[in-house]
Amino acid sequence: MTQSDTSPTLDRKANTGERSDQPAFARLGIIIKPDGGERLAEVYRNLVAIAEAHGVDWALEDGAENPDPNIPARRFSRDRVERDLIVVIGGDGTMLNAARSLCQHDVPILGVNLGRLGFLADVKPVEVERHLAAILEGRYSEERRFLLQGSLMRNDVRIMEAVALNDITFKMRDPARMVEFEMCIDGTLVNQQRSDGVVVCTPTGSTAYALSAGGPLIAPDLHAVGIVSICPHTLSYRPIVVDARHLIEICPVEGSRGGGVVSFDGQLNQPLEYGDVLSISKYEHDIRLIHPAGHDHYSLLRNKLGWSEQTF
Amino acid sequence: MTQSDTSPTLDRKANTGERSDQPAFARLGIIIKPDGGERLAEVYRNLVAIAEAHGVDWALEDGAENPDPNIPARRFSRDRVERDLIVVIGGDGTMLNAARSLCQHDVPILGVNLGRLGFLADVKPVEVERHLAAILEGRYSEERRFLLQGSLMRNDVRIMEAVALNDITFKMRDPARMVEFEMCIDGTLVNQQRSDGVVVCTPTGSTAYALSAGGPLIAPDLHAVGIVSICPHTLSYRPIVVDARHLIEICPVEGSRGGGVVSFDGQLNQPLEYGDVLSISKYEHDIRLIHPAGHDHYSLLRNKLGWSEQTF
Amino acid sequence: MTQSDTSPTLDRKANTGERSDQPAFARLGIIIKPDGGERLAEVYRNLVAIAEAHGVDWALEDGAENPDPNIPARRFSRDRVERDLIVVIGGDGTMLNAARSLCQHDVPILGVNLGRLGFLADVKPVEVERHLAAILEGRYSEERRFLLQGSLMRNDVRIMEAVALNDITFKMRDPARMVEFEMCIDGTLVNQQRSDGVVVCTPTGSTAYALSAGGPLIAPDLHAVGIVSICPHTLSYRPIVVDARHLIEICPVEGSRGGGVVSFDGQLNQPLEYGDVLSISKYEHDIRLIHPAGHDHYSLLRNKLGWSEQTF
Amino acid sequence: MTQSDTSPTLDRKANTGERSDQPAFARLGIIIKPDGGERLAEVYRNLVAIAEAHGVDWALEDGAENPDPNIPARRFSRDRVERDLIVVIGGDGTMLNAARSLCQHDVPILGVNLGRLGFLADVKPVEVERHLAAILEGRYSEERRFLLQGSLMRNDVRIMEAVALNDITFKMRDPARMVEFEMCIDGTLVNQQRSDGVVVCTPTGSTAYALSAGGPLIAPDLHAVGIVSICPHTLSYRPIVVDARHLIEICPVEGSRGGGVVSFDGQLNQPLEYGDVLSISKYEHDIRLIHPAGHDHYSLLRNKLGWSEQTF
Repeated sequence: MTQSDTSPTLDRKANTGERSDQPAFARLGIIIKPDGGERLAEVYRNLVAIAEAHGVDWALEDGAENPDPNIPARRFSRDRVERDLIVVIGGDGTMLNAARSLCQHDVPILGVNLGRLGFLADVKPVEVERHLAAILEGRYSEERRFLLQGSLMRNDVRIMEAVALNDITFKMRDPARMVEFEMCIDGTLVNQQRSDGVVVCTPTGSTAYALSAGGPLIAPDLHAVGIVSICPHTLSYRPIVVDARHLIEICPVEGSRGGGVVSFDGQLNQPLEYGDVLSISKYEHDIRLIHPAGHDHYSLLRNKLGWSEQTF
Repeated sequence: MTQSDTSPTLDRKANTGERSDQPAFARLGIIIKPDGGERLAEVYRNLVAIAEAHGVDWALEDGAENPDPNIPARRFSRDRVERDLIVVIGGDGTMLNAARSLCQHDVPILGVNLGRLGFLADVKPVEVERHLAAILEGRYSEERRFLLQGSLMRNDVRIMEAVALNDITFKMRDPARMVEFEMCIDGTLVNQQRSDGVVVCTPTGSTAYALSAGGPLIAPDLHAVGIVSICPHTLSYRPIVVDARHLIEICPVEGSRGGGVVSFDGQLNQPLEYGDVLSISKYEHDIRLIHPAGHDHYSLLRNKLGWSEQTF
Repeated sequence: MTQSDTSPTLDRKANTGERSDQPAFARLGIIIKPDGGERLAEVYRNLVAIAEAHGVDWALEDGAENPDPNIPARRFSRDRVERDLIVVIGGDGTMLNAARSLCQHDVPILGVNLGRLGFLADVKPVEVERHLAAILEGRYSEERRFLLQGSLMRNDVRIMEAVALNDITFKMRDPARMVEFEMCIDGTLVNQQRSDGVVVCTPTGSTAYALSAGGPLIAPDLHAVGIVSICPHTLSYRPIVVDARHLIEICPVEGSRGGGVVSFDGQLNQPLEYGDVLSISKYEHDIRLIHPAGHDHYSLLRNKLGWSEQTF
Repeated sequence: MTQSDTSPTLDRKANTGERSDQPAFARLGIIIKPDGGERLAEVYRNLVAIAEAHGVDWALEDGAENPDPNIPARRFSRDRVERDLIVVIGGDGTMLNAARSLCQHDVPILGVNLGRLGFLADVKPVEVERHLAAILEGRYSEERRFLLQGSLMRNDVRIMEAVALNDITFKMRDPARMVEFEMCIDGTLVNQQRSDGVVVCTPTGSTAYALSAGGPLIAPDLHAVGIVSICPHTLSYRPIVVDARHLIEICPVEGSRGGGVVSFDGQLNQPLEYGDVLSISKYEHDIRLIHPAGHDHYSLLRNKLGWSEQTF
C-alpha cells in the first residue's frame, strides 16, 4: 500500500503522462520572501531557468523587488492570479501569508524553503532543479488543506474577518494578565476558563504553535480542528479535537481579565473585549499544496521533530 | 442552536409522539453486573416495575443470577438478542463488555451506573424511574459510537481477533521492561519507538486510559482514532489523531524488548511477539447508545473531569 | 510522626504555654485588600474584637481606607513596621504584595482569604475568630518561605531590582511573538530557546503560574527553584529544578524576537531587550508565614487541586 | 564562573600536580558488560595498555570472562574491592548495577559506554586513551550522587531491602490492571491514587524512566527526590519534588487492584501486596562518579535530549 492512500495527496504522473512535451503547469507565478538576499536570488535564477527550459510562462509577484534585475520579469497580482502554479520561495511564514491570500483562487502552491526544512515549504534549495522539473513534467502529488475563518462580532456588527491556515488564537494582551472566557461549540458551553489563551488549529497548524502548547498531531487529511488551552488554571483541561464542521465561539467574560488579542497565523492581530464574540469555522475554500512525488508526511514529522534521533 | 446539532445524538420525541400508548421499545433486555448486591437489586426491581407499567416485555440475560428471586424472570441470550433495547446495570466496565458482544446486533443500549456517573453508563440509580419512563415513551437521544477491531497475525495466520469500544493497547509484559515496535499507518512507517506501550483509542476511549496517558479529548462524533504512546523514550513524541478509515499496524522489533501484551478495553489480553503483527482498524458495526433527552457531552466532561470545580 | 517533621512549620504551643495571659504577639498590624466591601468589613470587625479581647495593640496600615469608620484605628507604616504579627485580609494577590514589602522586616504574616481558600491566605473568614484566638494564645505553626531577587542589568548598570515570592517570569511582549534567549546557570549555558517565555519559581510559586505552565510541585521546605519554559519550540525541553543557591541568567538574543517583559509575581513589569541581562537569585530575607496549628500542606494541595474529587 | 561551581564536581588537577610521576589512582579495577564482543575487547585492551603505561596495578572483576585471553588478568572481587578507581565498560545499565554494589565501598567509578553516550557512562571508546591518561595524571572531576534505599515490610518483618541509583518504582503487575495505593511523606498522607504506578527517583534518575513519565529534570547537586505518577487517573496530579531527607511510604489499598511490583533501577523486582509497606529513603552511602575534566551536565543534556537540534 503506498503513501498516497494514507493522505489526500495523489501522485499525478499517470494523468499527464501522454503529452510530456507540454508542461503540467503552463503559467507559473513566483512569490518571494522580502529581503531574501543572495540565497533567494540563487533559487530564483534556478527556478526561472527551469521554467524557461520547460517553455513555461513565468511571472513575479507585483511589488516584489526583482531578486536579479538582470532578468526582466513579467508580473502578476495576487488579486487576479491567472497562474496555474504558484511557487513560494521563503519559509513557512511566507507560505502562510501566500496561502491566506491565494486560497480563494484555487491555484496550487509549491513551497521552497530558504532556511531549514518547513512543514509547508518542503522543497530544499538544492532540490529545486530536480523537483521542479519533475513537477512540470507531471510527477507530483497534490494535497488539499483547509483553512479556518474567524469573525469578530461587536454589537451584532462584524468588525473583522480573516482566514488562517495554521491557527486562530485568543491570548492575553499583557504578559502578566490572563484571559477569562467562555467557549462554546455549536452553541453548547464547553467550559469557562482562565488561561494565557487558547489556540484553535487546523491539522496544518497542529505542527505549529498548538504543538508548543501541548496539542496533539492531527493528520493532514482529518477533517478536524484542535482546541488547545495555553497554561490553563484548571489542571484537568486537555486538548480537544472536534469535527471541522462545528462552530467554535469564544466570549470574554466581564471584568478586568476578560479582554485579549485575536491572532490569525500569528500575523494579523485584533483586540477582543467583553461583549465581543469570536466565531471560528471552517473556511469555504481550501488551499492546494503541491509536493514532489513520494511526499511522506510521517517522514517529515520524524525529521522535523527529531524522532529519528537517538533517544535518551 | 441545540446540543443535538453538536453530536450525532438525535432527540427522538417527535418520531414516536403519535402513539404514546405503545412503548418506544417493545422488548427490553437486562444485562447486570455480577455480584451487584442489594444496590443492584433495587435498581433492577425499579426497572422491572417501570417496564411492566409500560407493558414492555422484559427479560434478563441468560446465566445471570436473578437479583430478586421473588420476581420470576424470562431470559434472553446475547447470541440471539431479539430485544429492542438493552439496559445495562453496572458501570462502564459492564457497558464495555456488553457493547463488544452486542455491537453486531444493532440493538440500542442504555447504561445505568451503580457507582458514580460513568461516561457510558450515564443514568444514575435515582433517575431510573424518571428517565426510563421517558425513554419508553419515546423521549430520548440516540448516538452511534464506533468500535475498533484488532487482529493478531502470526506467520500469516490470524491467531486472534477481537473488538474494543474504548481502546486496544500494546504494553510491556513485565513492569520493568519496555516494548519496542514499529508503527505504520496504511503501510507508511510512523516511527519505531521504545516505550511502556501505546494506546489506540476511539473517541469513546479518549476519556479512558488514553487520557491518563496524555491523549487529547476526541469529540464523540469525530470519525477519528487517537494514538498515544505511554512513557515514550523519545521526548518529542506527541499523541496523533488520524482518520478512522486508516489501518494501524504494530510490529514488535527483534530482540528481548520486542514482545508485549495486547489488551482490548483492558479486558481481553493476548501476547504479541516479534514476527507478529497487530492490525487495528475500524469495526464494521457501531453501537447505539441511548441517552435521556437533553444529554450533553460537554456537561458530562465538566462534571467527570472536575472542570466546574474551583481552580487553583 | 507528625506533619511538623515534614516541613519547616513548627507547632509552637509548648513555647508559650507558661504565660497564657500574655498574647503571643503583642502588637498586631492589619493590611487589607482595597475595595474589599462588606465582606472585608465583617472580617475586620471580627479581627479587631479578638485582638482587643486579648489585649493586643492593633493598627491598620497607613493609607488604607478604614473598613469600619465607627472603629477608630491606630495606623502603622510598611516602612517602619514595629508590629509582631501582620494579618493580611484579602487573597493570595494581597499576600504576595505584602510579602514582598515586609520580607526585610522579619515579621510573621497570617493570611485571611476573602474569597476561596488560598495557598498563602489559608484562614477562612468563618475561622478567623477561632484561629486568631488560638494563635494569640500561642498555638500556631510558623514556616519560612524564601523569595527570589531579580536584577536587570543594561550596559553594566542595574536598571531595576525587585523581589518575588512566587515567580519571576520573562515573556513575550506581544501575544503573537515569541521570545528567544539564552539561559545560564552559574555561568554555564543551559540552552538557547524560542518560546512564549520562562517562569523561574520558588517552591511557593510552584503552585501558581509555573504549575499552569507544566511545572512540578516543589515542597515548601525544599531549597530549590523551578525553571519552566512556556510553550517552548523544542519539544524535548522539560522543567528543571535546581538548588536555590545558583545564579540564573537570562539574556535575550539579538534580533526582532529577542525582547520581552520581566514580571515579578505578575505584579511588577519591566521590558528586557537584547544586551540586557536578567539575573535571578535567592533573596537574602525570607518571609515568615503563620498557620493555624495542624496546618498540612498536602491536605491543602488535595483540596486546591481537586485530588480528593472523584476521578474519571 | 566555571562549571565546577554549578555542581558538586570538582576539578582535581591541583591536588595531585606535585608528583605527576605517580598515578592519581594506584590500583584500578575493571568491570565489564557480559557479552560485549570485539567492541568491548578493543576498549579493554586500550584500557590495560594505558594502565600499564602509567604503572597502574589493574585487575578484572572476578567471574567476568576475560575479553582478551592473551592478556593474563589479575582479579578482584566486588565484595572486597581494594581498588582506587573502578572503570566500568558497558552502558548505563552496567553502571547502575556496579553503582549499587560498590556504593558502600566509597570507591570512585568511571564509565565508558560501548554504545551511544550515556548519562552515567560518559566516556566514549575513542576517548578512552586521552581521558584515562589525563585522569591517571590527576586531571578529572569527581561528583557525588546519592542513592535511594527501599524496604518492603510485611507484618512488621522486612522481607526485602535494596538500593537504587536511578529510581524505585511501584507498578502494576499485569499490563491491563492499575495499582491503587496511598502515599505518605514522613507519615503525612499525600494522596491515594489509581494509576499505572509511581516512580520515586534521584536527581540521577530524573533523566531516566521518570523523564519518560513526565517528571522534571532535577539538577545532580540538588538534595531532592522526584515523585512521578505514571498515567494517573486523576488529571490534576503533577510530579512532586521533595527534600531527600524525607521518608516516602507506599501502601497498596485493599482489593483486587492493590498489588503490584516494586523495581529497583528496573533491575530487581519484588511483589508488593495489600498490607505491605514500601519505605523509600536516602541511602547512607553515595557513589563517587569520575568525569573527564571539564564535564558539563547541561551540555550532556543538550546532547542527549536533542536540545541542540533544529526545532520545529
